[in-house]
Amino acid sequence: MLGLGLIGGSVLRALAAAGHRVTGYDVDPATRAAAAEAGEAARWWIADTIRDAVATAAVVVVAVPLPAVAEVLDELVDAGYTGLVTDVTSVKLPVRDLVDQRRRPDGPLAAFVGGHPMAGREVSGFAAADPALFHGCAWVLCLEPEHTDLSSWLELAALVTGLGARVVPATAAEHDRAVASVSHVPHLLAVALAATVATDPLAATLAAGSFRDGTRVAASPPSLIAAMCGGNARAVGPALDAVLGTLRQARE
Amino acid sequence: MLGLGLIGGSVLRALAAAGHRVTGYDVDPATRAAAAEAGEAARWWIADTIRDAVATAAVVVVAVPLPAVAEVLDELVDAGYTGLVTDVTSVKLPVRDLVDQRRRPDGPLAAFVGGHPMAGREVSGFAAADPALFHGCAWVLCLEPEHTDLSSWLELAALVTGLGARVVPATAAEHDRAVASVSHVPHLLAVALAATVATDPLAATLAAGSFRDGTRVAASPPSLIAAMCGGNARAVGPALDAVLGTLRQARE
Repeated sequence: MLGLGLIGGSVLRALAAAGHRVTGYDVDPATRAAAAEAGEAARWWIADTIRDAVATAAVVVVAVPLPAVAEVLDELVDAGYTGLVTDVTSVKLPVRDLVDQRRRPDGPLAAFVGGHPMAGREVSGFAAADPALFHGCAWVLCLEPEHTDLSSWLELAALVTGLGARVVPATAAEHDRAVASVSHVPHLLAVALAATVATDPLAATLAAGSFRDGTRVAASPPSLIAAMCGGNARAVGPALDAVLGTLRQARE
Repeated sequence: MLGLGLIGGSVLRALAAAGHRVTGYDVDPATRAAAAEAGEAARWWIADTIRDAVATAAVVVVAVPLPAVAEVLDELVDAGYTGLVTDVTSVKLPVRDLVDQRRRPDGPLAAFVGGHPMAGREVSGFAAADPALFHGCAWVLCLEPEHTDLSSWLELAALVTGLGARVVPATAAEHDRAVASVSHVPHLLAVALAATVATDPLAATLAAGSFRDGTRVAASPPSLIAAMCGGNARAVGPALDAVLGTLRQARE
């Protein structure tokens, strides 16, 4: 487990709860200390370097924000890690590109399968990690025709099914197009809506059910929303255009 | 109580629960029958005509859809009703215009105060009516400088406060501008979002929390959404433009 935020920490807890022996790592020493303390009575250990964390691992899960993925992949290559690698980043084409730039045939990153559990909350950090976070959630595992190693894919599918998730196979491009519509564009709409209402004091007083629901997700940190949408600009653009087109028609 | 749908029926039940003697009317005979049956053990009566319903009423609440408001107002004028009249329509300028076209000084509709309880559900009809629907909700009562009869306004304010609502004074224009932002535009965004996702089968599979919240309100009948937004076109247009402007900036 590389990265122990909400998702990484929840994967750590869920894997441990499912009976797996897990080693975790986070770049933040305070997070490592908190996870180590929480792990004393549980079935996980915390390493102080990525090299130590992956030394004996059969599977590595990269659970860091998109801007940090490249560095973590570099460290896996430097460590000569040749086992199965997956990630939980919310965009898949940019991660696939980063992996392709570094993968060695039969060497590091040869067995990479991109992943994305469609779970989340408006809280973040290891303290909010929840082993039940993936119960019933859709977990995309990228399956690229004539590209993905099928035995690696099946091994990961069994692993995440064991955490309560239902596996959804998709290409990276299909995934990014779909999450643009179901996640990134809704976040943008919520932010735009909140910005409009902020200019009208009476509107805030009147905020009723439909409005609160539509903007609840705007409570996500703007930097996270920007990072998510920015990383998926290739797919968010067309999806946003489709919504804008519908709205312009409504405007007429 | 003229109109016994979700809102009208809930006002009827809430007024009766608060100890008021209430007479209800609905244009639909089946609704009148259902309300009459439900009222046998309660404190309300159902009349077969608007004239009978308002004959002894101190206050008349018009709770019919916007397209039916003009006809109900005509019947109040024909009946020579000179008491206090309010409504619960979700747009206030169009209703104010309809009233102004019919009001007689010291005669019918002289004592009209527009109202709008900001409560609702994705269900409709008398069967869903709930006397607790207005607990804690904002209830706009139109207060137009140099226009509204203050004693009528105060009487209505006391009445709706007694149903658990908090009274919000606003001009009709202020109200329509605010609900465009907090209600009508969010509904349009939800519909546009749902239309975009409908074109992508994987997106439906992946629909996660943020998406479900953003489109839940799209479950409202499209005809109701269209009627609401259409009636408030003066205010929805600029509010939608503001959101579109923000989104176009995000698109860049």
